[in-house]
Amino acid sequence: MTGAAITALKSCEVIVGYKTYLELIPEFLEGKEVISSQMMKEVERCREALERAEKGQKTALVSGGDPGIYAMAGLVFEMAQKGNFICSIEIIPGLAAINSCAARLGAPLMHDFAAVSLSDLLTPLELIYKRLEAVAAADFVCALYNPKSKKRTEQIVKAREIFLRYRSPENVVGIVTNAARENEQIVITTLDSMLGEDIGMQSTVIIGNSNTYRWQDLMITPRGYGGKYEI
Amino acid sequence: MTGAAITALKSCEVIVGYKTYLELIPEFLEGKEVISSQMMKEVERCREALERAEKGQKTALVSGGDPGIYAMAGLVFEMAQKGNFICSIEIIPGLAAINSCAARLGAPLMHDFAAVSLSDLLTPLELIYKRLEAVAAADFVCALYNPKSKKRTEQIVKAREIFLRYRSPENVVGIVTNAARENEQIVITTLDSMLGEDIGMQSTVIIGNSNTYRWQDLMITPRGYGGKYEI
Repeated sequence: MTGAAITALKSCEVIVGYKTYLELIPEFLEGKEVISSQMMKEVERCREALERAEKGQKTALVSGGDPGIYAMAGLVFEMAQKGNFICSIEIIPGLAAINSCAARLGAPLMHDFAAVSLSDLLTPLELIYKRLEAVAAADFVCALYNPKSKKRTEQIVKAREIFLRYRSPENVVGIVTNAARENEQIVITTLDSMLGEDIGMQSTVIIGNSNTYRWQDLMITPRGYGGKYEI
Repeated sequence: MTGAAITALKSCEVIVGYKTYLELIPEFLEGKEVISSQMMKEVERCREALERAEKGQKTALVSGGDPGIYAMAGLVFEMAQKGNFICSIEIIPGLAAINSCAARLGAPLMHDFAAVSLSDLLTPLELIYKRLEAVAAADFVCALYNPKSKKRTEQIVKAREIFLRYRSPENVVGIVTNAARENEQIVITTLDSMLGEDIGMQSTVIIGNSNTYRWQDLMITPRGYGGKYEI
């Protein structure tokens, strides 16, 4: 957590957030009005936070990872605009899954990369597959968000197929589940073998580029092509 | 800065880093051995840090942004491997330009996005342009790192041309220079007008997707396509 996030949590009067995230920060809840809610109530949470802020209460809306990456920042502004809420809003950046999972794997990003969510709740499947094809063909490192859930099992199979059209079966793949939490799991595998590994709702899958290699228990993407630097 | 970074800086004996970054953290330098160097000495800095660590000195190698995103993490591992350095290495993730610049612009990422560096020092130009074409065509939000320098002036012109083949001239573009520093500059513009704005070595350029819009002085990418959610 950053210093700016700590300052905001300490100085606010109301904390709004998904229950599971609030349970991670008990030290900030004491003495505050706490409004927690279950998964899939994002819209209600945002509205609650905006209403409190409009009333003049200093309100923190807590998001996992970075609020600006597949999280709540956009929704807050969309709702503030459509609901004509009058309040000042500050986005405090945080470590997204790409930042924290990459650090746990070694240095898999390093170079040009893309993030693609495999959830088709808010995005047409054909656009998701078009994007995967684009990044596979252009040799991006690719971080897959929301790779799999109980209901969403086909996309990761199809994603692998798309990458295999452009990449070697030995292309390195890293899977981080519950990054930096107690039950963290880190696996380094290949496109060929990745479907044999546990991948779930708390996983981020990072597919390396054609230069990415495995060294010891690490996944490393060199920072350049063609040996242009002497080390 | 995160708590983990502060703990590491406090507990180390040696701090190695680029001079300009070390000047940002004077409070951590006191009582430490400090090894600073100028730009473009990355390899020397890494070697110095690895040699110290191998000798048993607790050493912090300081990087701007996130060490795993266009920074030092990969080089440290590449050099540890090739030089057979025996020491334990931990990567402490941080806020990359994509995290901090996005927060200053509002919520420009939110959805699938790509990061592409326009520097051809370590990457062939044709691969850079191929990647830009891929993300432009697949409607990614795209963050351009190293968009322009005194010598590197053509790439940003060409990048805009490539995006204009697939996107409207009104496609929203955000430019953040010196994010969260004293002389921060934030501009929200369009593909059409972006070249009229100041873009330099300290700038990150974020090109929205076809759904990204401007509201007040903010750049917002909705989190979904096709109005699949009610707000």
